Amino acid sequence: MSPEPAFETVCLVGIGHICSSLALALRRQGLARRLVTFEIDPEARRVAVEMGLVDLASADPAEVIPGADLVVVGVPVGAMKSVGQTIAPHLTPGAIVTDTGSVKQAVVRDLGPSIPAGVHFIPGHPIAGTEFSGPASATEGLFVGRWQILTPLPGTDPAALDRLAALWTAIGSNVEVMEPRHHDRVLAITSHLPHLIAYTIVGTASDLEGHLQHEVIKFSASGFRDFTRIAASDPVMWRDIFLNNREAVLEVIQRFTEDLTALQRAIRWGEGEILQQKFTETRAIRRAIIDARQA
Amino acid sequence: MSPEPAFETVCLVGIGHICSSLALALRRQGLARRLVTFEIDPEARRVAVEMGLVDLASADPAEVIPGADLVVVGVPVGAMKSVGQTIAPHLTPGAIVTDTGSVKQAVVRDLGPSIPAGVHFIPGHPIAGTEFSGPASATEGLFVGRWQILTPLPGTDPAALDRLAALWTAIGSNVEVMEPRHHDRVLAITSHLPHLIAYTIVGTASDLEGHLQHEVIKFSASGFRDFTRIAASDPVMWRDIFLNNREAVLEVIQRFTEDLTALQRAIRWGEGEILQQKFTETRAIRRAIIDARQA
Ligand SMILES: NC(=O)c1ccc[n+]([C@@H]2O[C@H](COP(=O)([O-])OP(=O)(O)OC[C@H]3O[C@@H](n4cnc5c(N)ncnc54)[C@H](OP(=O)(O)O)[C@@H]3O)[C@@H](O)[C@H]2O)c1
Ligand SMILES: NC(=O)c1ccc[n+]([C@@H]2O[C@H](COP(=O)([O-])OP(=O)(O)OC[C@H]3O[C@@H](n4cnc5c(N)ncnc54)[C@H](OP(=O)(O)O)[C@@H]3O)[C@@H](O)[C@H]2O)c1
Repeated sequence: MSPEPAFETVCLVGIGHICSSLALALRRQGLARRLVTFEIDPEARRVAVEMGLVDLASADPAEVIPGADLVVVGVPVGAMKSVGQTIAPHLTPGAIVTDTGSVKQAVVRDLGPSIPAGVHFIPGHPIAGTEFSGPASATEGLFVGRWQILTPLPGTDPAALDRLAALWTAIGSNVEVMEPRHHDRVLAITSHLPHLIAYTIVGTASDLEGHLQHEVIKFSASGFRDFTRIAASDPVMWRDIFLNNREAVLEVIQRFTEDLTALQRAIRWGEGEILQQKFTETRAIRRAIIDARQA
Repeated sequence: MSPEPAFETVCLVGIGHICSSLALALRRQGLARRLVTFEIDPEARRVAVEMGLVDLASADPAEVIPGADLVVVGVPVGAMKSVGQTIAPHLTPGAIVTDTGSVKQAVVRDLGPSIPAGVHFIPGHPIAGTEFSGPASATEGLFVGRWQILTPLPGTDPAALDRLAALWTAIGSNVEVMEPRHHDRVLAITSHLPHLIAYTIVGTASDLEGHLQHEVIKFSASGFRDFTRIAASDPVMWRDIFLNNREAVLEVIQRFTEDLTALQRAIRWGEGEILQQKFTETRAIRRAIIDARQA
């Protein structure tokens, strides 16, 4: 029998894009008897209550953290430490604390030490999202068919882990458990590097002389258009990701730059066979992703 | 009064993704009394006839080129020269020859000299397409709301230019006339560099150790997923684009690499303000593209 995924009171810490989408999913599946949020921004609190995402929104942790048997921290990775210190004194023994941060070693480092003994700390990362932010961007079905990665620390209570995994399964995610360090390496390639590249290429275009820049926008073709969508993602969230997954990101930039240099050289010397071969190899990866149903 | 866009016989040279989509559009708008194709691949000829894209498909230019008042060459840029030499002796005086190649200076250089006096040569490039190829990928409405760039040479007959422009307008494209050299510079940024980057990043992933590569595919996040779609584009088409727009592409790679190095440095030294500022600037470009209705 799979463990009961429902919780009594779920407190969403920071009701942004991810936590508001999670609220929709929890409501739809009836997985929380009560949904509350600790949110410092009055406008976000107003929107969240107005949209019916939560029953109560407060800027006072003492009002919403005590009694919550699940706390989901959905703030930028760089805010995890201070938010952790703010909520920690109010946590109820036996509660589960998880997060949605896009980097996991840094969250273990920054949020972990605040969590008192008797509270279960299980870091997590939903591989789902869009370029939008704030509660108004709450997206129905955001996590359905997507991966939820959990990175429990050694010694985590298996029952708490099962209960949290069952929650994500109940909202349609596929749950995978892995080491925080491994998570950060994989995501550096699949998510962090592509975002950095998209920011760079769109930045390169925005540095062009006025006339050329105007034409780049006007004749924006597929490729560039996709990149601008990615490069419209939240600047603070992404700043924090790069600052907090520095080592893995720098390593993949290095590999990427070497590979780009090789293609650049092939273009310069007119080496058509090298280009064609490289461009053929990449098709296999696309096919594998389609087969893995992540396309 | 806008000129009559309809043609008697349109010959599509190479019935691939672009020309087959054009066939659908011409059929729907009744812009060609007769549609034929010169195509060397028997399988593509079979599919094109079976799908009703053309009335006649032939591997013999003498069967389909004579009598065509519009010839659209839709082959990879590197094949323009030989294809031009093959069709040239069969062209009818007064006909218009255009192409769909993604690079324009090279087409002027390679296709132009074959076109006999008395035939109007007007190079073109539809800023539309997908990662698919061949006639089976014919896409209804592919050109609607998209730009069609025409790069006529000095001395082009204005009536012929108007007639070709009217054809593209009739199928829903917005027509823009520009210099071939300017086209190649703009597209190097909006299309060629993004494709090169996507090929590179997906190539970097495909060079990873087996275990890590498996996980990259499995947990492929937004960003990387988009890149794999772009990197699934036709290898020959893209080889030819890079070989034939070398100068402009090398220049933008240079700019891009400098910009990436600056971000890499900011990550290495933990310079959060620089990252946040750069990531904020790029949002403005996205907004401008949405405003220009190209998103
Ligand atoms: N968006 C995605 O695609 C995605 C996907 C997977 C994981 N994630 C991760 O999920 C987390 C949340 O992302 P999101 O997209 O939901 O972001 P978001 O929409 O910008 O929401 C972030 C929330 O955190 C609050 N917050 C920001 N700084 C804070 C601080 N210093 N102290 C307290 N609260 C603060 C924000 O409140 P204010 O309105 O007051 O700033 C907002 O409610 C991030 O760690 C991100 O890396 C995002
Ligand atoms: N796809 C896009 O997104 C896009 C967008 C704008 C412009 N374009 C440009 O449009 C042109 C066609 O692209 P596409 O996507 O339609 O390509 P495609 O689907 O691969 O079709 C190319 C056609 O050209 C034929 N061909 C290839 N090499 C040839 C050769 N050496 N001699 C004679 N015919 C040959 C192919 O026949 P086989 O089957 O025998 O190879 C096929 O019919 C290219 O110049 C491309 O740069 C493409």
